[in-house]
Amino acid sequence: MELLDKLHWRYAAKAMNGQAVSQDKIDNIIEAARLAPTSSGLQPFEIMVITNQELKEKIRPVAWDQSVVTECSHLLVFAAWDHYTKDRINYMFDLTNEIRGFKNEGWENYRQQLLNTYPQQDPEENFKHASKQAYIALGMAMVAAAYEKVDCTPMEGFSADKVDEILELREKGLRSAVLLPIGYRAPEDDWLVDLVKVRKPTEDLITELK
Amino acid sequence: MELLDKLHWRYAAKAMNGQAVSQDKIDNIIEAARLAPTSSGLQPFEIMVITNQELKEKIRPVAWDQSVVTECSHLLVFAAWDHYTKDRINYMFDLTNEIRGFKNEGWENYRQQLLNTYPQQDPEENFKHASKQAYIALGMAMVAAAYEKVDCTPMEGFSADKVDEILELREKGLRSAVLLPIGYRAPEDDWLVDLVKVRKPTEDLITELK
Repeated sequence: MELLDKLHWRYAAKAMNGQAVSQDKIDNIIEAARLAPTSSGLQPFEIMVITNQELKEKIRPVAWDQSVVTECSHLLVFAAWDHYTKDRINYMFDLTNEIRGFKNEGWENYRQQLLNTYPQQDPEENFKHASKQAYIALGMAMVAAAYEKVDCTPMEGFSADKVDEILELREKGLRSAVLLPIGYRAPEDDWLVDLVKVRKPTEDLITELK
Repeated sequence: MELLDKLHWRYAAKAMNGQAVSQDKIDNIIEAARLAPTSSGLQPFEIMVITNQELKEKIRPVAWDQSVVTECSHLLVFAAWDHYTKDRINYMFDLTNEIRGFKNEGWENYRQQLLNTYPQQDPEENFKHASKQAYIALGMAMVAAAYEKVDCTPMEGFSADKVDEILELREKGLRSAVLLPIGYRAPEDDWLVDLVKVRKPTEDLITELK
């Protein structure tokens, strides 16, 4: 399967060469993230797509000084909702009704159910739940990047508070969840590039219950 | 891009027809999950692959009685580590050294850093972190399923405690994080199948910082 070959090819590049990734490839990667299924279809995150070099340089020191932050072409910041508010829930249900052109009673009951639970929950719990949805999109974006033969490096090693501050995410009701620098590998600067990919053997990963 | 066409084709089937998915397709879907990158490469989850119909029938009532749980071909249960223990961290670092055939000082220092932090953290926090890694694999598995033109339905709507009990996950140091029934859609039983896919428009999802 061609897709698996590409997933074998991908790795978390520790050095990138600064080459720009074409807009159509970036569009395809973002589209894969946009199409990701999420809990109740809420898509509780946004993605900051940073090409501004000064911004990348501000983020690098609060991201363990990892060079890919500035060497990448596009730095994606997956920023999850800080809370599930009534407005946000209504936005997605209204959008659904608008796109589909009709209201459905079961769907409206489900809206009420969410309105009666999510906004009353601890915002921290809601943020964590929203972050998990962002990780689904992260996974799908990484497959799309590999499909386009573009490198990317998922990164949790950064100060979320500092990134939130630099990008003024809190003011928008968002909190940074995970970073994804996208670009092209620089094999000559990356000791990892030629190493064998390490994954648990299938028998340690799965248990068949027949 | 062919991949995006397949992501447009996919949807969370609310009814499946019971048809078996071939072993090679299942293998490819699981392989995509196995290849998913995870924080520090720890792959802190396992996947239960359930074809046993009695087990599916036990799970269905604790999963909002959703019919796909029993109508699917394979029910995948992504089960995250309940904690990051020293043994689990050492397993992955030892495996890396074994596969690559050498020890690296930086890598060994990193092992110590993880050993000195993760096991001392709140297990609940560690489980949540592990769950997010499972969601990356979930996203990648769903892309692989679409690539294989196989349906799947990501599900958070279930009693995690009950599923843990049915599958005896706690005894293995695991906790159920998310379900993924895999099979083939049953369009005649699914009112959702012909509805337009609803996603936020790109301009509401991304912010370009140039």
